[in-house]
Amino acid sequence: MPETLIKVDLTQSAYENDMVHNRWHPDIPMVAYVKPGQDFIVETYDWTGGFIKNNDSADDVRDIDLSIVHFLSGPIGVEGAEPGDLLVVDLLDIGAKPDSQWGFNGFFSKQNGGGFLTDHFPLAQKSIWDFEGMFTKSRHVPGVRFPGLIHPGLIGCLPDPKLLATWNERETALIATNPTRVPGLANPPFGPTAHMGRLSGAAKDKAAAEGARTVPPREHGGNCDIKDLSRGSKIYFPVYVPGAGLSMGDLHFSQGDGEITFCGAIEMAGWVHLKVEVIKDGMAKYGIKNPIFKPSPIVPRFDDHLIFEGISVDESGGQHYLDVTVAYRQACLNAIEYLKKFGYSGAQAYSILGTAPVQGHISGVVDVPNACATLWLPTGIFDFDINPSAAGPTQYLDGSVQMPISPDK
Amino acid sequence: MPETLIKVDLTQSAYENDMVHNRWHPDIPMVAYVKPGQDFIVETYDWTGGFIKNNDSADDVRDIDLSIVHFLSGPIGVEGAEPGDLLVVDLLDIGAKPDSQWGFNGFFSKQNGGGFLTDHFPLAQKSIWDFEGMFTKSRHVPGVRFPGLIHPGLIGCLPDPKLLATWNERETALIATNPTRVPGLANPPFGPTAHMGRLSGAAKDKAAAEGARTVPPREHGGNCDIKDLSRGSKIYFPVYVPGAGLSMGDLHFSQGDGEITFCGAIEMAGWVHLKVEVIKDGMAKYGIKNPIFKPSPIVPRFDDHLIFEGISVDESGGQHYLDVTVAYRQACLNAIEYLKKFGYSGAQAYSILGTAPVQGHISGVVDVPNACATLWLPTGIFDFDINPSAAGPTQYLDGSVQMPISPDK
Amino acid sequence: MPETLIKVDLTQSAYENDMVHNRWHPDIPMVAYVKPGQDFIVETYDWTGGFIKNNDSADDVRDIDLSIVHFLSGPIGVEGAEPGDLLVVDLLDIGAKPDSQWGFNGFFSKQNGGGFLTDHFPLAQKSIWDFEGMFTKSRHVPGVRFPGLIHPGLIGCLPDPKLLATWNERETALIATNPTRVPGLANPPFGPTAHMGRLSGAAKDKAAAEGARTVPPREHGGNCDIKDLSRGSKIYFPVYVPGAGLSMGDLHFSQGDGEITFCGAIEMAGWVHLKVEVIKDGMAKYGIKNPIFKPSPIVPRFDDHLIFEGISVDESGGQHYLDVTVAYRQACLNAIEYLKKFGYSGAQAYSILGTAPVQGHISGVVDVPNACATLWLPTGIFDFDINPSAAGPTQYLDGSVQMPISPDK
Amino acid sequence: MPETLIKVDLTQSAYENDMVHNRWHPDIPMVAYVKPGQDFIVETYDWTGGFIKNNDSADDVRDIDLSIVHFLSGPIGVEGAEPGDLLVVDLLDIGAKPDSQWGFNGFFSKQNGGGFLTDHFPLAQKSIWDFEGMFTKSRHVPGVRFPGLIHPGLIGCLPDPKLLATWNERETALIATNPTRVPGLANPPFGPTAHMGRLSGAAKDKAAAEGARTVPPREHGGNCDIKDLSRGSKIYFPVYVPGAGLSMGDLHFSQGDGEITFCGAIEMAGWVHLKVEVIKDGMAKYGIKNPIFKPSPIVPRFDDHLIFEGISVDESGGQHYLDVTVAYRQACLNAIEYLKKFGYSGAQAYSILGTAPVQGHISGVVDVPNACATLWLPTGIFDFDINPSAAGPTQYLDGSVQMPISPDK
Repeated sequence: MPETLIKVDLTQSAYENDMVHNRWHPDIPMVAYVKPGQDFIVETYDWTGGFIKNNDSADDVRDIDLSIVHFLSGPIGVEGAEPGDLLVVDLLDIGAKPDSQWGFNGFFSKQNGGGFLTDHFPLAQKSIWDFEGMFTKSRHVPGVRFPGLIHPGLIGCLPDPKLLATWNERETALIATNPTRVPGLANPPFGPTAHMGRLSGAAKDKAAAEGARTVPPREHGGNCDIKDLSRGSKIYFPVYVPGAGLSMGDLHFSQGDGEITFCGAIEMAGWVHLKVEVIKDGMAKYGIKNPIFKPSPIVPRFDDHLIFEGISVDESGGQHYLDVTVAYRQACLNAIEYLKKFGYSGAQAYSILGTAPVQGHISGVVDVPNACATLWLPTGIFDFDINPSAAGPTQYLDGSVQMPISPDK
Repeated sequence: MPETLIKVDLTQSAYENDMVHNRWHPDIPMVAYVKPGQDFIVETYDWTGGFIKNNDSADDVRDIDLSIVHFLSGPIGVEGAEPGDLLVVDLLDIGAKPDSQWGFNGFFSKQNGGGFLTDHFPLAQKSIWDFEGMFTKSRHVPGVRFPGLIHPGLIGCLPDPKLLATWNERETALIATNPTRVPGLANPPFGPTAHMGRLSGAAKDKAAAEGARTVPPREHGGNCDIKDLSRGSKIYFPVYVPGAGLSMGDLHFSQGDGEITFCGAIEMAGWVHLKVEVIKDGMAKYGIKNPIFKPSPIVPRFDDHLIFEGISVDESGGQHYLDVTVAYRQACLNAIEYLKKFGYSGAQAYSILGTAPVQGHISGVVDVPNACATLWLPTGIFDFDINPSAAGPTQYLDGSVQMPISPDK
Repeated sequence: MPETLIKVDLTQSAYENDMVHNRWHPDIPMVAYVKPGQDFIVETYDWTGGFIKNNDSADDVRDIDLSIVHFLSGPIGVEGAEPGDLLVVDLLDIGAKPDSQWGFNGFFSKQNGGGFLTDHFPLAQKSIWDFEGMFTKSRHVPGVRFPGLIHPGLIGCLPDPKLLATWNERETALIATNPTRVPGLANPPFGPTAHMGRLSGAAKDKAAAEGARTVPPREHGGNCDIKDLSRGSKIYFPVYVPGAGLSMGDLHFSQGDGEITFCGAIEMAGWVHLKVEVIKDGMAKYGIKNPIFKPSPIVPRFDDHLIFEGISVDESGGQHYLDVTVAYRQACLNAIEYLKKFGYSGAQAYSILGTAPVQGHISGVVDVPNACATLWLPTGIFDFDINPSAAGPTQYLDGSVQMPISPDK
Repeated sequence: MPETLIKVDLTQSAYENDMVHNRWHPDIPMVAYVKPGQDFIVETYDWTGGFIKNNDSADDVRDIDLSIVHFLSGPIGVEGAEPGDLLVVDLLDIGAKPDSQWGFNGFFSKQNGGGFLTDHFPLAQKSIWDFEGMFTKSRHVPGVRFPGLIHPGLIGCLPDPKLLATWNERETALIATNPTRVPGLANPPFGPTAHMGRLSGAAKDKAAAEGARTVPPREHGGNCDIKDLSRGSKIYFPVYVPGAGLSMGDLHFSQGDGEITFCGAIEMAGWVHLKVEVIKDGMAKYGIKNPIFKPSPIVPRFDDHLIFEGISVDESGGQHYLDVTVAYRQACLNAIEYLKKFGYSGAQAYSILGTAPVQGHISGVVDVPNACATLWLPTGIFDFDINPSAAGPTQYLDGSVQMPISPDK
């Protein structure tokens, strides 16, 4: 096996591991260097650094301090990589840590992060998903079992100072439009909980005060949460700083398009086996602003789907103009109502949409005033037949199993 | 072959065919009745009723009066269907009219309809796509050829008066927020160009003044422009009026997710072979608000894609909050910049994204403040290799072939 | 639409159509010429020239004179094609004749042709399959419905005299090893029922006496019965005579790998839309002896299969040495026994394996002494669940529907 | 992680591990017991027990004593399983040993085992394949790289005495028809190199003298070498003895249909993560003689193939009657000739067909006298374009890299 450049010990705090960081800043020192063509392994914490536990209470989901996320492994320097290059990353394989064959999914309280359907599910809830080799199932969500489409929710290269400044400026400006909104419109830099890797002292304090939060996807990739950027994919990342500085984390065993439950996919600690190459001056050669990638030749595929439509008229009948976000929310709500007819609670249905390899397609974006989005639910993940029939739905679930919930304090 | 219930003569004006209509209204009389279990054929005009011609000028795209669209065939009554039922429609097959083996794609002028990228492509342009059996290619967009994923852009049942009123109210209210916007936020009822099928006299005038325009997708389905709702699919439509009143049109030989070029996909005249069944009280049984469907077992599939990411920061650097529409626009613009490196004009690249079986995925919608969308470009549609390499792109096209353009008058 | 070079009238005897032939011989005159790059349409009879009827008796299957088959449309000359070239044929589309939306499947009597399982099903039987757009189902085989993977069972170019002589010599020699076997080991030339297209008089008599029968696949392709050589495929045929002389027929709406029922797949009359190109000296350039091809991008795909294994130990326990034919026969018999547990008759199960898009894989051919073959049964073609379960199979069929059978006279 | 029931130490002789055996016999003692529903891990040697080394000489392939194979891990008893039941085995995951990230492929000398094309490649040759996460490539076969379709070549339950006797009788009878043939028609029991697990003394000697060799696939499954019986599959095995007695080994990182190179696929040491269930009386309930299985939802898929046809006329022009084995051999030879045009040696091309996820289909088995088989070569495994073109093939390889060969001593 190739060398493991970064190891994580799940019994140790992520803050104590100096090959981990939770902010984006060009000053974070490289923790290792590799040559183009080299393959290596990187271990990662789950995105919360182990805060969420394998138990039957959602208190941890309710109580988490979200300023601590995401704990990323890196940055790794690539010899010869320079600003303007493309860093070509092969995700040769990804897996869960052998001592941690489980993951979590949850909904944050609307008071602490929320989620895509937070108005409908405002309280903290959690489900635990156990892994059985390539498959997963949950003791809190009966009737479904599916293979993992394992991927890093978050991967990208360090920004340079100019790009970092752009991020902070535009996000701060957004927050300023409604600074007291709950949940917040964005997350500004926040020094106290920053983990800046091997930086220390004043350099650390300065960088911590400036470091961009890791939540949003940005020009460098970052927290894209693209389920199809999975083991076997090849990614072309823009390089902004000498050595590129590749970091990653937030591994998912599986996720539905949109990661609508926010906390999150099926979140896990694990390892990534990578190989890197460089395309010199690739950004200009190919006109690249955001990363591009090629998906894996090995993915769980389901040919049979039940597809739900949604349009950009919201739950209250409000008319939005070509708003795909609203349309997808309606498609999700429609799917949840459908699944409830088979005996699922709304929370369980929401959890399925957040964890299973559900596809979200942008179907129409020009037919004013309504956007149309579709949610593709693979029928093969269910232990029973969820197709419509003249006889109507059968209640396969009796409601005896429910997801943990923790009311706001 | 089963009976052709509705025939269209492409040499005749669509207004002269009384089995065609271009507005939604519960008073439009059924033009034929079928029994559950029956299969039958319906012919349709292209959505413009033949206004766009197979030539090398975009003048028709520039000059079209968009209040005439879409010319739909129907409504067809289904015996026994009642409000609250689900109408199950099998799209047994779909094809182009034998005497019309071509289709068109275009961009409307920003002054007359616009499109998803109208700020970047503000003038009328057109490409013509010839069909060769299952495949298509264009004399205006060299280097691509692909099989058709044929589908009706528009299909659905008649609204009842209450639903119609809801549509008109909410869309009129949206228009009122910016009534002089170009292009308009939505399209209000407009009597002068209404074709109300077999209605005549005062009844026609009344319905024409109230009839909902056909452009947006709505609760009943309608103009969803979902490329995957293709020949071989099975759809479950809500029924609002006795007899259901199924109408359809706007056939597409192929389309990319989003139908971003608006005018439109590869638009064609053709025929649909359908079968209908009824699920009594299906809306309540399954909690249905919008149609749901199952995709076809026969679709053109491409395993190899190049995937472009976009985030909800607009072309000017403006920060939007979890806006998938903005994110998808960026993914599209990124793909266009990439394709230009191989010799395509921007317009040709835009046309490819609008016509080929490109997928648009909603990848992340919770990572504040940025949504992430991905555009999946199938590499197999190109005559040459569009993958990135260390050597950089080769210019396969010399620019000698361009798309017709017509400046605003 | 492109020109239809060969038309067939299903109410007329195939012998009266001089653009049809039922033997392979280099002297058969071209009936039309095309240029490279040209696309055109060819109509064909079903392989029996209409002998098998859409009714509920298997008498026609029992009584057919098999020396009349296959009725092929052609030969079509391609300008510039010369011996040693490769003829590149695009199957742009294929369909049933509009006035003949049905097909047949049957088992020949062991006394008249037999089939792969003729020892188990020695009598003539028939099933009729109706087409519903892209789909088919049978009034004689309930519980299955599937989309068509439409293809020509037989297509290829004229042999030259030397190749023809080789065919006749080797097949005659085989027959000589057991000339009285029933069914026969091969079919020698047979003049009386030969249809030699536009040949007449002595030239016809001579060619008829020499013409190779159309039953076997040979170096030129011919009756390969490859289900995956379907609409949308591209084939590279060896050219032996100036002009190539492309002929085709034996269209199938659908077939399982092996065409085990022999009479045959779902046999139909129809049309083929083709385009031809030439690769000069392509046989030597690419080392081609038999045709090669690329499959269609549009095929019915089923992700879920139930797979049956067979080894080369026959039904009587006889041990064969690495014999895939015996192994596949066992896999087929195993699948039939399985399907009978759900209520199918053996004949119905056999018919499903001959008609549905069943795959036959060569799994192991080196593990002496047993070959291993697998039969892949797509579960999605059934109206009910055929997967094994702890509860055991449910009898979904009550035996009230059976396939017509006609005892030997 | 679940318990590892059987461990293997690659530095130790397989003969010293008493949880391993290399013959089939009902007396071999169970080495562990599991309960239905339990999941567990089993480690295995490569099929030769480590005889073939990761080096650049084929001497080991030439010199191996084939009476030692296959080294299987087991048998594992399943509580409650009885003769007549079906043992349901979920292959939850499979992988290479972390300390052994490579595999081998080779051709045996015709004097010592041979292979499917041994008349064309009569000498021992070898290629080594290195694993890079999910992918593999070889220093001896340039220009190809593909993901693994990992599977056990050999898995099955212990036979009862009656079944064992049947095997030995029929195989001995076959050998008797040509006892001096090289390579042999089959392999009779052979005590001296038998490894009978935990049997010892006279019991061992008796069982060793009777134990069936592990080479062929048989009624119980065994050495089926089915590439699609891969990680994620679910298999239903006949049970013959109380406790079932499940054994497995001969893991393959990848294999082409037929395993034509015999030595073998890409052979590796590794581990299998399994779960077992029992269907009581399942053999009778479902009419099961040989195992059936459902393939994995996660497999490497290639949409683009180049397909080679073969018919049952052998290389010398000899006519065979509906012989799929001969037909597939011709398809393989045709593919090899084709690949040689791009610069591969015949041995390298043969090796590709044996290792890559090549499909072998039984296309026609009734068109007397010729069977038709097809070999599906995935084009995406090559670093260059192998499709035919008017320009003819480009020699991508310069012949500087060749496979090790070892002449017979």
